[in-house]
Amino acid sequence: MEKIVVALGGNALLNAAGKQRESSEIKTAEKAMAHVAEFAGRSNAQIVITHGNGTQVGDELLRNEFTEAKVPKLPLYLLNAETQGSIGSVLEIALRNAFAKRGIEKEVCTVLTHVIVDGKDTAFRKPAKPVGPFYSKEKLDSVLSKERFSYVKEKKGYRRVVPSPFPRGIVEIDAIKNELARGRVVIAAGGGGIPVMRKSNAYKGVDAVIDKDLASMVLANAIGAKTLAILTDVDFVYRDYKNRKGAIKTITAKEAKRMLPYLEEGTIKPKVEACMGFVEGGENRVSYIGNLSMLKDVLEGKAGTKIYK
Amino acid sequence: MEKIVVALGGNALLNAAGKQRESSEIKTAEKAMAHVAEFAGRSNAQIVITHGNGTQVGDELLRNEFTEAKVPKLPLYLLNAETQGSIGSVLEIALRNAFAKRGIEKEVCTVLTHVIVDGKDTAFRKPAKPVGPFYSKEKLDSVLSKERFSYVKEKKGYRRVVPSPFPRGIVEIDAIKNELARGRVVIAAGGGGIPVMRKSNAYKGVDAVIDKDLASMVLANAIGAKTLAILTDVDFVYRDYKNRKGAIKTITAKEAKRMLPYLEEGTIKPKVEACMGFVEGGENRVSYIGNLSMLKDVLEGKAGTKIYK
Repeated sequence: MEKIVVALGGNALLNAAGKQRESSEIKTAEKAMAHVAEFAGRSNAQIVITHGNGTQVGDELLRNEFTEAKVPKLPLYLLNAETQGSIGSVLEIALRNAFAKRGIEKEVCTVLTHVIVDGKDTAFRKPAKPVGPFYSKEKLDSVLSKERFSYVKEKKGYRRVVPSPFPRGIVEIDAIKNELARGRVVIAAGGGGIPVMRKSNAYKGVDAVIDKDLASMVLANAIGAKTLAILTDVDFVYRDYKNRKGAIKTITAKEAKRMLPYLEEGTIKPKVEACMGFVEGGENRVSYIGNLSMLKDVLEGKAGTKIYK
Repeated sequence: MEKIVVALGGNALLNAAGKQRESSEIKTAEKAMAHVAEFAGRSNAQIVITHGNGTQVGDELLRNEFTEAKVPKLPLYLLNAETQGSIGSVLEIALRNAFAKRGIEKEVCTVLTHVIVDGKDTAFRKPAKPVGPFYSKEKLDSVLSKERFSYVKEKKGYRRVVPSPFPRGIVEIDAIKNELARGRVVIAAGGGGIPVMRKSNAYKGVDAVIDKDLASMVLANAIGAKTLAILTDVDFVYRDYKNRKGAIKTITAKEAKRMLPYLEEGTIKPKVEACMGFVEGGENRVSYIGNLSMLKDVLEGKAGTKIYK
């Protein structure tokens, strides 16, 4: 049976749970899941859905820090666990409803997923994963005066960064495979997974946020997927990403590698790297980067950038 | 294969994730999971672990309300989803480590669980489920001046209450059964489940906190369990609960029913009701209420109160 990993990212989707109360944002999840349902209804493929949590885990961090004096604070790794719950719930319900609306008898389940990292990963010394809201320079100064954290400057403003170690394995891989084999769409590795390290035969939570595209690559490898589709808020990988010029429709991993130095860090670059790593990890694999709102077309190879070996 | 539902409750365990950072509290989860591992290592039973979230979901409510002006607020039903993630992670890791330490090759997985409620349940008009911290009378007044919510007076102080509708079905029941059949210990229905109602063929989140003992009863019925064990911070059901006198070792559901009016609301009463409902729902069923720290003895029928038909 063909296996597909669909990675949902970008603010497009992620606001869905972050501002859940506004119906406009639940609708983003509903729209994306309508695409998945339509694709799944016509395909026999086993489908895993992964998602990012940059916005939400940043919100949780702020909530915990602002109320530290009044409410017991949770460590960052458990905040990832929280967002797997909240975003997983929004996506699962949206997908179940999308199936029901179309009379498609398919089940969905969300598996809490821990992802193994190396406690000595150099990423712990150099926080690089942007989380939470964008700040103006002035706002940032006032936030920094109270909360001490690392940050980066992005196009939309300044943003906090946290360590983002490389994912090395999926703890619950057997459970995920088992559910897929029963025909369920599985939501897994949300937010890149809950980071854990191994120490003398035991797991231990690690405070970090794993890149969800890289985690999706590791998951796709582990289940033996033939397709990895990374959905975001751009239509294509562009040769000139800043100006959205020179849309790439197909590209080999080798060619993509030559482009890497020119791609934007933290946005499009890790997605291209995840696709490259995936297609180079085995034969007859294909990966896509495309727009969330075109999800079905991307999965059918009609839209987005196709990266192959 | 015999099936067992183990419901973990009481502050004893629940603080484990609430103040995760303090190693003393992670240890509570580790101790409880050591009992489960020892029992599971000697038994062929399929085991589901459920847990409460009274403390944690109350903490999340406070965090969201205190920071409402700065961070987008999440609705209560998604806060339940968050606690399934954080508590589920703490329990799963503790149980995996307990198995590894004992050389027991058993897998664990945590399934995000939605529980169906009736949108017209009278519970929505009469909030009754205590969540979050205990307040002194003075503290309560200052909290109430800002946050308007219902509360009850318990032995340890005043406590906020939220609606707690009756659980009517487990959405992910097939996935849970599937994982059990593969020999995995399944952590499910955390915090009583994420409450959803059905409306014109679609699920919709509902702001409430379902009683985890009643949800455990519904889950135990749905998987065809023969044993329901509810673990808490008392050794027995007592005839005189207030003064912990007249420990009951065995009691029939009929006898228990006669005691109900004299049992404390919100603490021991729903546990006895859940046990009664379970044993009366089928033949050859047995239920236990006992101390979390005696989990293995309770599961083996050597400690706690046994309720049978």
